[in-house]
Amino acid sequence: MSVKLETANPVRCFKARGTEVVASRLAEHGPRAVVCASAGNLGQALAWSGRGRGLDVTVVASRFATVAKLDRIRALGARLELVDGDHESARARASAVARHEGIRLLEDSLDIETCEGAATIGLELVGAEPSFDAVLIALGGGALATGVGHVVKDLAPGTEVICVQPLGAPAMTRSWHSRRVVTTDSTDTIADGVAGRYPIPSVVDDLLLVADDALLVKEASIVAGMRMLLHHAGLVVEPSAALGVAAILENRDRFAGRHVVTVICGSNVDMDAYHRWVATASP
Amino acid sequence: MSVKLETANPVRCFKARGTEVVASRLAEHGPRAVVCASAGNLGQALAWSGRGRGLDVTVVASRFATVAKLDRIRALGARLELVDGDHESARARASAVARHEGIRLLEDSLDIETCEGAATIGLELVGAEPSFDAVLIALGGGALATGVGHVVKDLAPGTEVICVQPLGAPAMTRSWHSRRVVTTDSTDTIADGVAGRYPIPSVVDDLLLVADDALLVKEASIVAGMRMLLHHAGLVVEPSAALGVAAILENRDRFAGRHVVTVICGSNVDMDAYHRWVATASP
Repeated sequence: MSVKLETANPVRCFKARGTEVVASRLAEHGPRAVVCASAGNLGQALAWSGRGRGLDVTVVASRFATVAKLDRIRALGARLELVDGDHESARARASAVARHEGIRLLEDSLDIETCEGAATIGLELVGAEPSFDAVLIALGGGALATGVGHVVKDLAPGTEVICVQPLGAPAMTRSWHSRRVVTTDSTDTIADGVAGRYPIPSVVDDLLLVADDALLVKEASIVAGMRMLLHHAGLVVEPSAALGVAAILENRDRFAGRHVVTVICGSNVDMDAYHRWVATASP
Repeated sequence: MSVKLETANPVRCFKARGTEVVASRLAEHGPRAVVCASAGNLGQALAWSGRGRGLDVTVVASRFATVAKLDRIRALGARLELVDGDHESARARASAVARHEGIRLLEDSLDIETCEGAATIGLELVGAEPSFDAVLIALGGGALATGVGHVVKDLAPGTEVICVQPLGAPAMTRSWHSRRVVTTDSTDTIADGVAGRYPIPSVVDDLLLVADDALLVKEASIVAGMRMLLHHAGLVVEPSAALGVAAILENRDRFAGRHVVTVICGSNVDMDAYHRWVATASP
């Protein structure tokens, strides 16, 4: 197995690939104020990309979001608004803020820049030697999966594109299997970065074009994946970044002998929780 | 503070920058057998660089070397010979093996390729914007310090080059301050990658040309540095890679307000020892 490391950068996740495009366009053509909802990583990236360009960045997040992510959003100078409820409440509030203040709403996975940013990871993957038999991608809102998936299917159609989501947050995966939007009432997973409930219809359509499969994995497998990445690669990762390894652990025969890569999409964790997770006995 | 990350590669350290040059030259012009002494990282890198080119690689190491490093050297297909005693015993044995078998001896820090490989890190550092006021470099045999130091002093002479070594393995630092080779009878440090006792005279001469200062740090500061890199950057590092942070912690006033970078030179640790180190109370 190979890993595509997307955490060795100032925001410790892949999201700045998209926000750099967004922020540079806003800095040129305005408006100079932008708001996004975020589980924490998009918010950090937008704050980071906006700061150097003098943009006025507002991030709306759930008050239950990962503390380390919220702290970094504040430290990067963005205005942070916390809402009760989960990530879907934050999305609704960000939309209202944008309407009320007349500023740009950046919508993850819907706005094409967020997918194009992720797609540049795909360009780096298809250039690898030897080529990959399968790419395992964390599935949340869908920007990473559709962005990477489109490039891989265009330039390396023989490479399998497999999305992975937690059993506790299965809305996009169920939508893909049903070929229509399926929502859920709640989420229950440590993988905070992919815990959405309301898939965006056009993103589901897009995912249907590029994904060869979508798998659901157990929480214990995510933890085992995090532990493996720590012990075998020295990588501290957030739960969402371990979804690909979790899928391999749950489907060993399927991936045996194949050249598989997974995108390590983020490493923003609360260290206390992280220590608690990786210190527990192997499942 | 900025970090220059040299661990996101297959051997989790900077050493392959040099061994790639060595191995490619050997593959072209022979001999096809090579031996080196190693505390573990050079050996991994030479094994990795040699494997793809069909070279016959022997690594000599102390039997007290970090287990994770020895395991990786074996896994990469090199012949591993363990000696009683410390790294200096391994150096003597490697030299004897080379003479006896008539094969190439790769001597870290003495052979110019090992310094030139490290020097490419310097090229990447001097290209950074904004430029650095100081570069903090782990000091062991001297390849990293002289390689990076020569480039920085040539291309960015205003940048301070500061070497850092543990108080428990001070031979090179004492040599630099005395302007002549100073040896020690023993070493006592967790920073296994820099624990030499017999500086190479020509490397000391080289270091005198490029280093602006050489600092010694306490073990507790190294551990505090490892803990900071884990908590603030999500980086698992080996003790030698935390020397620069340790120097900042011990000399806060000197570095306050300055743009400082340190090279994260390796992340090969025994995880049990690592957990023990970072779990202890802050000094």
